[in-house]
Amino acid sequence: MIYLDNAATTKPYNECLKQANIVNTEEYFNPSALYQKGIDATKIIKTAKNNILRRLGAINHEVIFTSCGSESDNQAVFCAVNRGVFVTDKGEHSAIHKSFLELKNRGRQIEFIDLNKDGSVNTDKLFDFCLNNEVSFVSIIHVNNETGAINDVNYIAEKIKSINKNIVFHVDGVQAYGKLDYKISDNVDLYSISAHKINALKGTGVLIKKKNLHLNPLIFGGGQENGLRSGTENVFGIKVFDLASEIHYGKLKENYEHVSELKRLLIEKLDKELFYIISTDNGSPYILSVSAVCVRGEVVMHTLENFGIIVGNGSACSSKNRYSRIIEACGYDKKILDGVIRISFSAENTVEEIEFTADKLNSVVKRLKGIMK
Amino acid sequence: MIYLDNAATTKPYNECLKQANIVNTEEYFNPSALYQKGIDATKIIKTAKNNILRRLGAINHEVIFTSCGSESDNQAVFCAVNRGVFVTDKGEHSAIHKSFLELKNRGRQIEFIDLNKDGSVNTDKLFDFCLNNEVSFVSIIHVNNETGAINDVNYIAEKIKSINKNIVFHVDGVQAYGKLDYKISDNVDLYSISAHKINALKGTGVLIKKKNLHLNPLIFGGGQENGLRSGTENVFGIKVFDLASEIHYGKLKENYEHVSELKRLLIEKLDKELFYIISTDNGSPYILSVSAVCVRGEVVMHTLENFGIIVGNGSACSSKNRYSRIIEACGYDKKILDGVIRISFSAENTVEEIEFTADKLNSVVKRLKGIMK
Repeated sequence: MIYLDNAATTKPYNECLKQANIVNTEEYFNPSALYQKGIDATKIIKTAKNNILRRLGAINHEVIFTSCGSESDNQAVFCAVNRGVFVTDKGEHSAIHKSFLELKNRGRQIEFIDLNKDGSVNTDKLFDFCLNNEVSFVSIIHVNNETGAINDVNYIAEKIKSINKNIVFHVDGVQAYGKLDYKISDNVDLYSISAHKINALKGTGVLIKKKNLHLNPLIFGGGQENGLRSGTENVFGIKVFDLASEIHYGKLKENYEHVSELKRLLIEKLDKELFYIISTDNGSPYILSVSAVCVRGEVVMHTLENFGIIVGNGSACSSKNRYSRIIEACGYDKKILDGVIRISFSAENTVEEIEFTADKLNSVVKRLKGIMK
Repeated sequence: MIYLDNAATTKPYNECLKQANIVNTEEYFNPSALYQKGIDATKIIKTAKNNILRRLGAINHEVIFTSCGSESDNQAVFCAVNRGVFVTDKGEHSAIHKSFLELKNRGRQIEFIDLNKDGSVNTDKLFDFCLNNEVSFVSIIHVNNETGAINDVNYIAEKIKSINKNIVFHVDGVQAYGKLDYKISDNVDLYSISAHKINALKGTGVLIKKKNLHLNPLIFGGGQENGLRSGTENVFGIKVFDLASEIHYGKLKENYEHVSELKRLLIEKLDKELFYIISTDNGSPYILSVSAVCVRGEVVMHTLENFGIIVGNGSACSSKNRYSRIIEACGYDKKILDGVIRISFSAENTVEEIEFTADKLNSVVKRLKGIMK
């Protein structure tokens, strides 16, 4: 099997599965317990937090463990600000997009800023809106999960804070953490991460917050995570996330160069008479969005499956809709929208896999177009 | 090590860890994906749901997977009802207790009903309150997690519905599922479960809801769980929970009799001049709360640790407070409150372990009392 849907989820590393077994066999105790084994479990969590902050160069931030990236996004949207206008862009993951629609249901004023053609936010429009409205909260995705477009979130954060230092700035970093060489700026108040996107396990997420930012819990109870996220901590998931992070950050540049080569190679090999390349060169090398113009992406996806090749069509989280809301917001017409395929790489993918995939993509789409004539 | 804090968390079964490895190696795909492997992941979730409903004899209910019992409790409290008076009792887990305090912060009217001496809710007072107030929501814990007292939730549900059929009735079943022979009544609208309390994994919870009950999401996004809980599903955690449930329900009565014998034995062996027995005979056999009167429970706990015996002192989730809020609400004075120890069994505990523990409890407390004289 050639797995090219790594933006949807990744195969957990073997080392991670071994680590999970060790924790669940020897260190399964409740971190809230006051005996030594409970204290040891608490230390695992604390170590993981310090490591995350170190990797992101964070000094003035702290870590809250959550159950997933969506929960982190929701807590950022619903629990930081209780006034003013909430602003995001049209390229956000559903966890932000739908949370904003819920804000509107609750009577808040919201705004979705337009995208550039590559899926990045139109910063001129963003800054202009912030200058002319009582904005209280801004959420911008770091790496667009469908096109791979990178928003320069530290630059955006700086500009936003220069417009109004009281605006709370959140970044959905789910497709960036462990993949881009990024150090978090002090202007970024909140930053969301998901473990299962970097070969760790489902069920673990992170919300990084500025220490001095007031944040309410989304889930109330036993007071875990400094009262900001109750519920027994997912100790093994946290330790596994720490390990997967260590592996990713240990070869961050090497992996980046490798997947850059894979992306470049696939673009080169694709027949440009059949495919329109949506992703741009300056986006994340981990995500390549293309369109088999005039052919349905879903049909291409299913045909590739017969050859053992797994690709996505748009974000898995919203794949029940016919068109990708995000690619549509980039300004493409139905011919392009219908044919969208998302190929998302991992460092484990090989040149041979990509060459085989390119061949099959070309032949499959050529055949499908022939059939439809 | 003799582990007697199974109400805080349990050691995952070896079969469960093997199952987790299999899913994470072979079935790690995103259930939202439209290719076969994604559909297969969805089937795992659907099968687990059907099995949960079957075990509880539920026909008119459906299952929502969450990240933990606390999240399930929070969704029940915050997302079912938006009017009227919210009622619970003084014996609830923090996930309900603190959520109710947050309801009050948000301007809702709340009421905590008194407990009986064993920690069960005073049903006369509960029904009386419901008769005389505009009650919209009632939450009652099935098995009190500190005393083990069992609330007859089906009976309570029936009475509540006869007072006002529009009252939404939620049960925190975290310490009951997999342990009591219980079939859910159609009068129970919502029922919360946690996986790591029955030898499955942290990071998985369940909220069971009546099919016809309108419920809002707590976490918005990709629309998983019929739109009621977004975020990539924790597939391996769900499959492992299903397996652990199967094991527990396969020997439910056998386990119940075994731990009943352990509880009876420990009570018998404890020196009644040293210990006050808080739990009653008609409570869950899985939880035994006692007090080493006039000795601090925390000191007893740490001294037992030296003999390799692990017990809890009150709910791990709230163990940072000096006194247990719940035991205090049962009406005990400080002498009793100071000495509270919670011994919570699993089916894996043996008679020999309990005899050893009883001996050590008696000698440790005798010695501590001697020291303090």
